[in-house]
Amino acid sequence: MRFTSEQRLEDGLLEREFTLDDIPAILWTPQSASASAPAPLILLGHPGGLAQMRPRLAARARRSALDGFATATIELPGGGERPALPAVDKARADLRRALAAGQPVSDEIVHRLILPLVDAAVPEWQAALDAILPLPELSERVGYSGGPIAIGIRLARVEPRITAAGLFAGSYVPADMIEEARNVTIPVHVLLQWDDRGNDRQMALDLFDAIGSTEKTLQANLGGHTGVPPHAGDEAARFFARHLKASS
Amino acid sequence: MRFTSEQRLEDGLLEREFTLDDIPAILWTPQSASASAPAPLILLGHPGGLAQMRPRLAARARRSALDGFATATIELPGGGERPALPAVDKARADLRRALAAGQPVSDEIVHRLILPLVDAAVPEWQAALDAILPLPELSERVGYSGGPIAIGIRLARVEPRITAAGLFAGSYVPADMIEEARNVTIPVHVLLQWDDRGNDRQMALDLFDAIGSTEKTLQANLGGHTGVPPHAGDEAARFFARHLKASS
Repeated sequence: MRFTSEQRLEDGLLEREFTLDDIPAILWTPQSASASAPAPLILLGHPGGLAQMRPRLAARARRSALDGFATATIELPGGGERPALPAVDKARADLRRALAAGQPVSDEIVHRLILPLVDAAVPEWQAALDAILPLPELSERVGYSGGPIAIGIRLARVEPRITAAGLFAGSYVPADMIEEARNVTIPVHVLLQWDDRGNDRQMALDLFDAIGSTEKTLQANLGGHTGVPPHAGDEAARFFARHLKASS
Repeated sequence: MRFTSEQRLEDGLLEREFTLDDIPAILWTPQSASASAPAPLILLGHPGGLAQMRPRLAARARRSALDGFATATIELPGGGERPALPAVDKARADLRRALAAGQPVSDEIVHRLILPLVDAAVPEWQAALDAILPLPELSERVGYSGGPIAIGIRLARVEPRITAAGLFAGSYVPADMIEEARNVTIPVHVLLQWDDRGNDRQMALDLFDAIGSTEKTLQANLGGHTGVPPHAGDEAARFFARHLKASS
Protein backbone atom coordinates (compact mmCIF):
# COMPACT_ATOMS: atom_id res chain seq x y z
CA MET A 1 0.00 0.00 0.00
CA ARG A 2 1.22 3.47 -0.91
CA PHE A 3 -0.48 6.75 0.01
CA THR A 4 -0.45 9.08 -3.01
CA SER A 5 -2.35 12.14 -1.75
CA GLU A 6 -3.74 13.57 1.45
CA GLN A 7 -6.12 16.42 2.13
CA ARG A 8 -8.29 17.70 4.97
CA LEU A 9 -11.92 18.20 4.04
CA GLU A 10 -14.57 20.07 6.02
CA ASP A 11 -15.04 19.02 9.64
CA GLY A 12 -11.47 17.74 9.70
CA LEU A 13 -12.22 14.63 7.63
CA LEU A 14 -8.90 13.30 6.30
CA GLU A 15 -9.06 11.99 2.74
CA ARG A 16 -6.11 9.89 1.58
CA GLU A 17 -5.76 8.28 -1.82
CA PHE A 18 -3.65 5.16 -1.95
CA THR A 19 -2.85 2.37 -4.34
CA LEU A 20 -2.89 -1.31 -3.56
CA ASP A 21 -0.66 -2.87 -6.20
CA ASP A 22 -2.22 -0.99 -9.13
CA ILE A 23 -5.70 -0.58 -7.67
CA PRO A 24 -6.76 3.01 -6.89
CA ALA A 25 -8.28 3.38 -3.43
CA ILE A 26 -9.40 6.03 -0.97
CA LEU A 27 -9.47 6.12 2.83
CA TRP A 28 -11.41 8.72 4.82
CA THR A 29 -10.83 9.05 8.58
CA PRO A 30 -12.74 11.36 10.89
CA GLN A 31 -10.83 13.95 12.89
CA SER A 32 -11.76 12.10 16.08
CA ALA A 33 -9.94 8.91 15.00
CA SER A 34 -6.66 8.27 16.78
CA ALA A 35 -4.59 5.47 18.22
CA SER A 36 -6.32 5.97 21.57
CA ALA A 37 -9.78 6.26 19.98
CA PRO A 38 -9.64 4.13 16.85
CA ALA A 39 -12.58 4.41 14.47
CA PRO A 40 -14.61 1.48 13.16
CA LEU A 41 -14.37 1.14 9.39
CA ILE A 42 -17.09 0.89 6.75
CA LEU A 43 -16.13 -0.40 3.30
CA LEU A 44 -18.04 1.57 0.67
CA GLY A 45 -19.23 -0.64 -2.17
CA HIS A 46 -20.02 0.92 -5.56
CA PRO A 47 -20.67 -0.25 -9.14
CA GLY A 48 -17.20 0.57 -10.46
CA GLY A 49 -15.73 3.79 -11.85
CA LEU A 50 -14.22 5.57 -8.85
CA ALA A 51 -13.83 8.90 -10.65
CA GLN A 52 -17.50 9.21 -11.60
CA MET A 53 -18.70 7.76 -8.28
CA ARG A 54 -16.39 9.96 -6.23
CA PRO A 55 -18.81 12.76 -5.28
CA ARG A 56 -21.36 10.22 -4.02
CA LEU A 57 -18.70 8.19 -2.22
CA ALA A 58 -17.31 11.34 -0.56
CA ALA A 59 -20.85 12.24 0.57
CA ARG A 60 -21.23 8.78 2.10
CA ALA A 61 -17.83 9.18 3.77
CA ARG A 62 -18.88 12.53 5.28
CA ARG A 63 -22.19 11.07 6.47
CA SER A 64 -20.40 8.12 8.07
CA ALA A 65 -17.81 10.39 9.71
CA LEU A 66 -20.66 12.16 11.54
CA ASP A 67 -21.16 8.88 13.40
CA GLY A 68 -17.42 8.44 13.98
CA PHE A 69 -16.80 5.94 11.19
CA ALA A 70 -13.78 5.75 8.91
CA THR A 71 -14.59 4.64 5.36
CA ALA A 72 -12.61 3.15 2.51
CA THR A 73 -13.22 2.18 -1.07
CA ILE A 74 -11.28 0.61 -3.93
CA GLU A 75 -11.76 0.58 -7.69
CA LEU A 76 -13.57 -2.53 -8.91
CA PRO A 77 -11.99 -5.00 -11.36
CA GLY A 78 -12.65 -3.64 -14.86
CA GLY A 79 -13.67 -0.21 -13.46
CA GLY A 80 -12.22 3.21 -14.32
CA GLU A 81 -8.64 3.00 -15.61
CA ARG A 82 -8.22 -0.64 -14.68
CA PRO A 83 -7.86 -3.26 -17.44
CA ALA A 84 -11.21 -4.06 -19.02
CA LEU A 85 -12.91 -7.43 -18.42
CA PRO A 86 -14.20 -8.23 -21.93
CA ALA A 87 -16.32 -11.21 -20.86
CA VAL A 88 -18.03 -9.14 -18.17
CA ASP A 89 -18.55 -6.26 -20.60
CA LYS A 90 -20.14 -8.67 -23.06
CA ALA A 91 -22.46 -10.03 -20.37
CA ARG A 92 -23.43 -6.46 -19.39
CA ALA A 93 -24.25 -5.68 -23.01
CA ASP A 94 -26.32 -8.87 -23.23
CA LEU A 95 -28.22 -7.88 -20.10
CA ARG A 96 -28.95 -4.38 -21.42
CA ARG A 97 -30.08 -5.82 -24.73
CA ALA A 98 -32.49 -8.17 -22.96
CA LEU A 99 -33.87 -5.34 -20.80
CA ALA A 100 -34.24 -3.01 -23.80
CA ALA A 101 -36.10 -5.73 -25.69
CA GLY A 102 -38.38 -6.33 -22.71
CA GLN A 103 -37.14 -9.92 -22.49
CA PRO A 104 -36.57 -11.81 -19.25
CA VAL A 105 -32.96 -11.67 -18.03
CA SER A 106 -31.66 -15.22 -17.96
CA ASP A 107 -29.71 -16.56 -15.01
CA GLU A 108 -27.01 -17.51 -17.51
CA ILE A 109 -26.39 -13.83 -18.37
CA VAL A 110 -26.48 -12.77 -14.73
CA HIS A 111 -24.06 -15.54 -13.87
CA ARG A 112 -21.58 -14.38 -16.56
CA LEU A 113 -21.91 -10.76 -15.44
CA ILE A 114 -21.74 -11.07 -11.68
CA LEU A 115 -19.70 -14.14 -10.75
CA PRO A 116 -16.37 -13.10 -12.35
CA LEU A 117 -16.70 -9.66 -10.75
CA VAL A 118 -17.36 -11.16 -7.32
CA ASP A 119 -14.54 -13.70 -7.68
CA ALA A 120 -12.07 -10.96 -8.65
CA ALA A 121 -13.24 -8.18 -6.33
CA VAL A 122 -13.56 -10.03 -3.03
CA PRO A 123 -9.86 -10.93 -2.63
CA GLU A 124 -9.00 -7.32 -3.45
CA TRP A 125 -11.30 -6.00 -0.74
CA GLN A 126 -9.66 -8.47 1.64
CA ALA A 127 -6.21 -7.28 0.60
CA ALA A 128 -7.34 -3.71 1.24
CA LEU A 129 -8.36 -4.71 4.77
CA ASP A 130 -4.96 -6.37 5.28
CA ALA A 131 -3.31 -3.12 4.21
CA ILE A 132 -5.28 -0.53 6.14
CA LEU A 133 -6.52 -2.25 9.30
CA PRO A 134 -3.04 -2.08 10.91
CA LEU A 135 -3.31 1.74 10.88
CA PRO A 136 -3.52 2.75 14.54
CA GLU A 137 -6.46 5.13 13.93
CA LEU A 138 -8.65 2.22 12.79
CA SER A 139 -10.33 -0.24 15.11
CA GLU A 140 -10.94 -3.88 14.19
CA ARG A 141 -14.67 -3.39 13.68
CA VAL A 142 -15.55 -3.51 9.98
CA GLY A 143 -18.78 -3.25 8.01
CA TYR A 144 -19.57 -3.37 4.29
CA SER A 145 -22.05 -0.88 2.85
CA GLY A 146 -23.70 -0.61 -0.56
CA GLY A 147 -23.62 -2.59 -3.76
CA PRO A 148 -23.10 -4.62 -5.80
CA ILE A 149 -25.08 -6.75 -3.39
CA ALA A 150 -23.42 -9.94 -4.68
CA ILE A 151 -19.99 -8.67 -3.59
CA GLY A 152 -21.43 -7.79 -0.19
CA ILE A 153 -22.99 -11.23 0.20
CA ARG A 154 -19.72 -12.98 -0.68
CA LEU A 155 -17.67 -10.73 1.62
CA ALA A 156 -20.18 -11.24 4.44
CA ARG A 157 -19.83 -14.98 4.01
CA VAL A 158 -16.05 -15.35 3.68
CA GLU A 159 -14.47 -12.42 5.54
CA PRO A 160 -14.69 -12.78 9.32
CA ARG A 161 -13.44 -9.24 9.95
CA ILE A 162 -16.72 -7.93 8.48
CA THR A 163 -19.37 -8.15 11.19
CA ALA A 164 -22.28 -6.13 9.73
CA ALA A 165 -23.44 -5.55 6.16
CA GLY A 166 -25.74 -2.82 4.85
CA LEU A 167 -26.53 -4.00 1.33
CA PHE A 168 -28.10 -2.16 -1.58
CA ALA A 169 -30.29 -4.52 -3.61
CA GLY A 170 -29.79 -2.62 -6.84
CA SER A 171 -28.40 -5.26 -9.19
CA TYR A 172 -29.09 -8.77 -10.37
CA VAL A 173 -27.88 -11.78 -8.43
CA PRO A 174 -27.26 -15.21 -9.94
CA ALA A 175 -29.31 -18.06 -8.51
CA ASP A 176 -26.34 -19.77 -6.91
CA MET A 177 -25.47 -16.61 -4.98
CA ILE A 178 -28.99 -16.67 -3.53
CA GLU A 179 -28.05 -20.14 -2.27
CA GLU A 180 -24.75 -18.72 -0.99
CA ALA A 181 -26.69 -16.13 1.02
CA ARG A 182 -28.03 -18.94 3.24
CA ASN A 183 -24.53 -19.14 4.76
CA VAL A 184 -24.41 -15.45 5.71
CA THR A 185 -24.88 -15.13 9.46
CA ILE A 186 -23.86 -11.56 10.34
CA PRO A 187 -26.50 -8.84 10.88
CA VAL A 188 -27.73 -7.51 7.54
CA HIS A 189 -29.72 -4.42 6.55
CA VAL A 190 -30.96 -4.59 2.95
CA LEU A 191 -32.11 -1.48 1.11
CA LEU A 192 -34.41 -2.01 -1.89
CA GLN A 193 -35.77 0.63 -4.23
CA TRP A 194 -39.22 -0.71 -5.03
CA ASP A 195 -39.31 0.58 -8.64
CA ASP A 196 -35.66 0.05 -9.62
CA ARG A 197 -35.90 -0.71 -13.34
CA GLY A 198 -32.43 -2.23 -13.62
CA ASN A 199 -33.20 -4.72 -10.90
CA ASP A 200 -35.60 -7.59 -10.32
CA ARG A 201 -37.75 -7.03 -7.26
CA GLN A 202 -38.68 -10.66 -6.76
CA MET A 203 -35.01 -11.65 -6.99
CA ALA A 204 -34.19 -9.11 -4.26
CA LEU A 205 -36.99 -10.47 -2.05
CA ASP A 206 -35.80 -14.05 -2.63
CA LEU A 207 -32.27 -13.00 -1.72
CA PHE A 208 -33.45 -11.32 1.48
CA ASP A 209 -35.47 -14.41 2.34
CA ALA A 210 -32.42 -16.63 1.81
CA ILE A 211 -29.99 -14.70 4.01
CA GLY A 212 -29.20 -16.94 6.98
CA SER A 213 -28.67 -14.23 9.59
CA THR A 214 -30.78 -14.18 12.73
CA GLU A 215 -30.93 -10.39 12.50
CA LYS A 216 -31.93 -9.06 9.12
CA THR A 217 -34.05 -6.10 8.00
CA LEU A 218 -35.37 -5.22 4.57
CA GLN A 219 -36.15 -1.59 3.97
CA ALA A 220 -37.99 -0.94 0.72
CA ASN A 221 -38.81 2.57 -0.43
CA LEU A 222 -40.87 3.87 -3.30
CA GLY A 223 -38.70 5.10 -6.13
CA GLY A 224 -36.05 4.17 -8.65
CA HIS A 225 -32.41 3.15 -8.39
CA THR A 226 -31.07 6.59 -7.42
CA GLY A 227 -34.13 7.74 -5.46
CA VAL A 228 -33.13 6.48 -2.01
CA PRO A 229 -34.83 8.89 0.44
CA PRO A 230 -32.66 10.64 3.06
CA HIS A 231 -34.36 8.87 5.95
CA ALA A 232 -33.27 5.51 4.49
CA GLY A 233 -29.64 6.63 4.64
CA ASP A 234 -30.13 7.66 8.25
CA GLU A 235 -31.59 4.28 9.10
CA ALA A 236 -28.68 2.46 7.46
CA ALA A 237 -26.35 4.67 9.51
CA ARG A 238 -28.14 3.68 12.70
CA PHE A 239 -27.80 0.01 11.72
CA PHE A 240 -24.01 0.39 11.59
CA ALA A 241 -23.97 2.40 14.81
CA ARG A 242 -25.86 -0.42 16.57
CA HIS A 243 -23.54 -3.14 15.34
CA LEU A 244 -20.10 -1.57 15.00
CA LYS A 245 -20.05 0.86 17.90
CA ALA A 246 -21.39 -1.34 20.71
CA SER A 247 -18.88 -1.73 23.49
CA SER A 248 -16.89 -4.89 22.94
CA MET B 1 -67.76 11.62 25.27
CA ARG B 2 -67.41 11.17 29.01
CA PHE B 3 -64.14 10.87 30.94
CA THR B 4 -64.43 8.09 33.51
CA SER B 5 -60.98 8.02 35.10
CA GLU B 6 -57.78 10.02 35.16
CA GLN B 7 -54.31 9.21 36.44
CA ARG B 8 -50.78 10.52 36.08
CA LEU B 9 -48.26 7.89 35.03
CA GLU B 10 -44.49 8.18 35.13
CA ASP B 11 -42.96 11.18 33.35
CA GLY B 12 -46.20 13.09 33.82
CA LEU B 13 -48.08 11.15 31.14
CA LEU B 14 -51.81 11.72 31.73
CA GLU B 15 -53.98 8.64 31.14
CA ARG B 16 -57.70 9.25 30.83
CA GLU B 17 -60.31 6.59 30.19
CA PHE B 18 -63.44 7.73 28.46
CA THR B 19 -66.50 6.28 26.80
CA LEU B 20 -67.89 7.21 23.44
CA ASP B 21 -71.51 6.13 23.56
CA ASP B 22 -70.79 2.68 24.99
CA ILE B 23 -67.32 2.20 23.52
CA PRO B 24 -64.45 2.10 26.03
CA ALA B 25 -61.54 4.33 25.04
CA ILE B 26 -58.29 5.72 26.44
CA LEU B 27 -56.44 8.99 25.81
CA TRP B 28 -52.83 9.58 26.83
CA THR B 29 -51.36 13.09 26.74
CA PRO B 30 -47.76 13.99 27.50
CA GLN B 31 -47.02 16.46 30.26
CA SER B 32 -45.73 18.92 27.67
CA ALA B 33 -49.12 19.14 25.89
CA SER B 34 -51.07 22.33 26.52
CA ALA B 35 -53.30 24.82 24.75
CA SER B 36 -50.22 26.85 23.82
CA ALA B 37 -48.22 23.74 22.77
CA PRO B 38 -50.81 21.25 21.53
CA ALA B 39 -49.57 17.72 20.86
CA PRO B 40 -50.09 15.84 17.61
CA LEU B 41 -52.17 12.69 18.09
CA ILE B 42 -51.46 9.09 17.11
CA LEU B 43 -54.39 6.66 17.02
CA LEU B 44 -53.23 3.28 18.34
CA GLY B 45 -54.71 0.41 16.35
CA HIS B 46 -54.94 -3.04 17.94
CA PRO B 47 -56.67 -6.38 17.26
CA GLY B 48 -59.47 -5.89 19.79
CA GLY B 49 -59.67 -6.66 23.50
CA LEU B 50 -58.55 -3.45 25.22
CA ALA B 51 -58.08 -5.09 28.62
CA GLN B 52 -55.61 -7.72 27.40
CA MET B 53 -53.89 -5.30 25.02
CA ARG B 54 -53.62 -2.56 27.61
CA PRO B 55 -50.03 -3.14 28.79
CA ARG B 56 -48.76 -3.09 25.20
CA LEU B 57 -50.89 -0.07 24.32
CA ALA B 58 -49.66 1.80 27.38
CA ALA B 59 -46.06 0.99 26.38
CA ARG B 60 -46.72 2.41 22.91
CA ALA B 61 -48.30 5.49 24.51
CA ARG B 62 -45.22 6.01 26.72
CA ARG B 63 -42.88 5.57 23.72
CA SER B 64 -44.90 8.06 21.67
CA ALA B 65 -44.99 10.58 24.53
CA LEU B 66 -41.18 10.64 24.49
CA ASP B 67 -41.52 12.27 21.06
CA GLY B 68 -44.25 14.63 22.27
CA PHE B 69 -47.21 12.70 20.86
CA ALA B 70 -50.60 12.20 22.46
CA THR B 71 -52.17 8.80 21.74
CA ALA B 72 -55.68 7.41 21.84
CA THR B 73 -57.34 4.07 21.34
CA ILE B 74 -60.86 2.66 21.36
CA GLU B 75 -62.25 -0.84 21.77
CA LEU B 76 -62.94 -2.54 18.44
CA PRO B 77 -66.45 -3.70 17.45
CA GLY B 78 -66.91 -7.17 18.95
CA GLY B 79 -63.87 -6.73 21.23
CA GLY B 80 -63.67 -7.03 25.01
CA GLU B 81 -67.03 -6.40 26.70
CA ARG B 82 -68.69 -5.10 23.53
CA PRO B 83 -71.49 -7.12 21.90
CA ALA B 84 -70.09 -10.08 19.96
CA LEU B 85 -70.17 -10.12 16.15
CA PRO B 86 -71.18 -13.74 15.47
CA ALA B 87 -70.56 -13.61 11.72
CA VAL B 88 -67.04 -12.26 12.28
CA ASP B 89 -66.39 -14.85 14.99
CA LYS B 90 -67.50 -17.58 12.60
CA ALA B 91 -65.19 -16.27 9.88
CA ARG B 92 -62.29 -16.16 12.39
CA ALA B 93 -62.99 -19.79 13.34
CA ASP B 94 -63.08 -20.72 9.65
CA LEU B 95 -59.72 -19.00 9.08
CA ARG B 96 -58.13 -20.77 12.06
CA ARG B 97 -59.49 -24.08 10.87
CA ALA B 98 -58.00 -23.55 7.41
CA LEU B 99 -54.62 -22.57 8.89
CA ALA B 100 -54.61 -25.54 11.28
CA ALA B 101 -55.38 -27.88 8.37
CA GLY B 102 -52.63 -26.35 6.30
CA GLN B 103 -55.16 -25.25 3.69
CA PRO B 104 -55.00 -22.01 1.75
CA VAL B 105 -57.07 -19.21 3.27
CA SER B 106 -59.72 -18.24 0.74
CA ASP B 107 -60.44 -14.61 -0.04
CA GLU B 108 -64.07 -15.38 0.79
CA ILE B 109 -63.17 -16.13 4.43
CA VAL B 110 -60.90 -13.09 4.68
CA HIS B 111 -63.64 -10.93 3.22
CA ARG B 112 -66.16 -12.17 5.82
CA LEU B 113 -63.66 -11.65 8.64
CA ILE B 114 -62.22 -8.26 7.78
CA LEU B 115 -64.79 -6.21 5.86
CA PRO B 116 -67.52 -6.08 8.56
CA LEU B 117 -64.88 -5.11 11.13
CA VAL B 118 -63.53 -2.32 8.92
CA ASP B 119 -67.01 -1.06 8.05
CA ALA B 120 -68.00 -0.94 11.72
CA ALA B 121 -64.72 0.31 13.21
CA VAL B 122 -63.85 3.18 10.88
CA PRO B 123 -66.86 5.39 11.69
CA GLU B 124 -66.15 4.80 15.39
CA TRP B 125 -62.55 5.95 15.02
CA GLN B 126 -63.85 9.00 13.18
CA ALA B 127 -66.35 9.70 15.98
CA ALA B 128 -63.49 9.41 18.47
CA LEU B 129 -61.59 12.07 16.51
CA ASP B 130 -64.68 14.29 16.51
CA ALA B 131 -64.85 13.91 20.28
CA ILE B 132 -61.24 14.43 21.32
CA LEU B 133 -59.67 16.72 18.71
CA PRO B 134 -61.45 19.80 20.14
CA LEU B 135 -59.43 19.33 23.36
CA PRO B 136 -57.09 22.34 23.52
CA GLU B 137 -54.05 20.20 24.37
CA LEU B 138 -54.34 18.34 21.03
CA SER B 139 -53.19 19.75 17.70
CA GLU B 140 -54.92 18.94 14.41
CA ARG B 141 -52.14 16.64 13.24
CA VAL B 142 -53.24 13.01 13.39
CA GLY B 143 -51.62 9.71 12.48
CA TYR B 144 -52.79 6.09 12.68
CA SER B 145 -50.42 3.44 13.98
CA GLY B 146 -50.63 -0.34 14.09
CA GLY B 147 -53.11 -2.93 12.92
CA PRO B 148 -55.41 -4.31 11.77
CA ILE B 149 -53.84 -3.01 8.58
CA ALA B 150 -57.20 -3.07 6.78
CA ILE B 151 -58.65 -0.57 9.25
CA GLY B 152 -55.60 1.63 8.76
CA ILE B 153 -55.91 1.49 4.98
CA ARG B 154 -59.60 2.44 5.08
CA LEU B 155 -58.97 5.27 7.58
CA ALA B 156 -56.05 6.54 5.51
CA ARG B 157 -58.32 6.63 2.47
CA VAL B 158 -61.46 8.21 3.92
CA GLU B 159 -60.38 10.36 6.88
CA PRO B 160 -58.64 13.56 5.79
CA ARG B 161 -57.57 14.46 9.34
CA ILE B 162 -55.19 11.47 9.26
CA THR B 163 -52.05 12.56 7.39
CA ALA B 164 -49.60 9.73 8.09
CA ALA B 165 -50.09 6.01 8.69
CA GLY B 166 -47.67 3.54 10.26
CA LEU B 167 -49.26 0.18 9.50
CA PHE B 168 -48.54 -3.27 10.91
CA ALA B 169 -48.97 -5.91 8.20
CA GLY B 170 -49.93 -8.61 10.65
CA SER B 171 -53.31 -9.78 9.40
CA TYR B 172 -55.03 -10.89 6.23
CA VAL B 173 -56.50 -8.37 3.82
CA PRO B 174 -59.30 -9.11 1.36
CA ALA B 175 -58.49 -8.64 -2.31
CA ASP B 176 -60.79 -5.68 -2.76
CA MET B 177 -59.02 -3.82 0.07
CA ILE B 178 -55.76 -4.26 -1.83
CA GLU B 179 -57.54 -2.43 -4.66
CA GLU B 180 -58.74 0.16 -2.16
CA ALA B 181 -55.12 0.79 -1.12
CA ARG B 182 -54.46 2.28 -4.56
CA ASN B 183 -56.45 5.32 -3.42
CA VAL B 184 -54.35 5.92 -0.31
CA THR B 185 -52.11 8.93 -0.90
CA ILE B 186 -50.74 9.92 2.53
CA PRO B 187 -47.21 8.89 3.61
CA VAL B 188 -47.21 5.28 4.80
CA HIS B 189 -44.68 3.21 6.77
CA VAL B 190 -45.48 -0.52 6.69
CA LEU B 191 -43.98 -2.92 9.19
CA LEU B 192 -43.88 -6.60 8.22
CA GLN B 193 -42.68 -9.51 10.33
CA TRP B 194 -41.10 -11.78 7.71
CA ASP B 195 -42.08 -15.05 9.43
CA ASP B 196 -45.50 -14.12 10.80
CA ARG B 197 -47.41 -17.42 10.70
CA GLY B 198 -50.85 -15.86 11.00
CA ASN B 199 -50.22 -13.68 8.00
CA ASP B 200 -49.57 -14.11 4.29
CA ARG B 201 -46.29 -12.52 3.26
CA GLN B 202 -47.12 -12.23 -0.43
CA MET B 203 -50.44 -10.59 0.42
CA ALA B 204 -48.58 -8.01 2.53
CA LEU B 205 -46.12 -7.35 -0.31
CA ASP B 206 -49.01 -6.99 -2.78
CA LEU B 207 -50.72 -4.57 -0.44
CA PHE B 208 -47.56 -2.48 -0.06
CA ASP B 209 -47.15 -2.47 -3.83
CA ALA B 210 -50.74 -1.27 -4.30
CA ILE B 211 -50.61 1.67 -1.89
CA GLY B 212 -50.91 4.81 -4.03
CA SER B 213 -48.79 7.12 -1.86
CA THR B 214 -45.75 8.84 -3.32
CA GLU B 215 -43.93 8.26 -0.05
CA LYS B 216 -44.08 4.73 1.27
CA THR B 217 -41.62 2.51 3.10
CA LEU B 218 -41.76 -1.19 3.86
CA GLN B 219 -39.70 -2.38 6.77
CA ALA B 220 -39.50 -6.15 7.07
CA ASN B 221 -37.71 -7.83 9.96
CA LEU B 222 -36.88 -11.41 10.66
CA GLY B 223 -39.20 -12.92 13.21
CA GLY B 224 -42.79 -13.78 14.03
CA HIS B 225 -45.88 -11.71 14.77
CA THR B 226 -44.78 -10.48 18.21
CA GLY B 227 -41.05 -10.33 17.47
CA VAL B 228 -40.79 -6.74 16.21
CA PRO B 229 -37.25 -5.62 17.12
CA PRO B 230 -36.83 -2.44 19.18
CA HIS B 231 -35.08 -0.59 16.34
CA ALA B 232 -38.18 -1.07 14.16
CA GLY B 233 -40.29 0.71 16.77
CA ASP B 234 -37.77 3.53 16.82
CA GLU B 235 -37.92 3.85 13.06
CA ALA B 236 -41.72 3.97 13.08
CA ALA B 237 -41.46 6.71 15.72
CA ARG B 238 -39.13 8.70 13.46
CA PHE B 239 -41.61 8.28 10.60
CA PHE B 240 -44.31 9.98 12.67
CA ALA B 241 -41.90 12.66 13.88
CA ARG B 242 -41.04 13.50 10.26
CA HIS B 243 -44.64 13.76 9.14
CA LEU B 244 -46.61 15.01 12.13
CA LYS B 245 -44.13 17.36 13.78
CA ALA B 246 -42.87 19.33 10.76
CA SER B 247 -43.62 23.04 11.10
CA SER B 248 -46.87 23.80 9.37
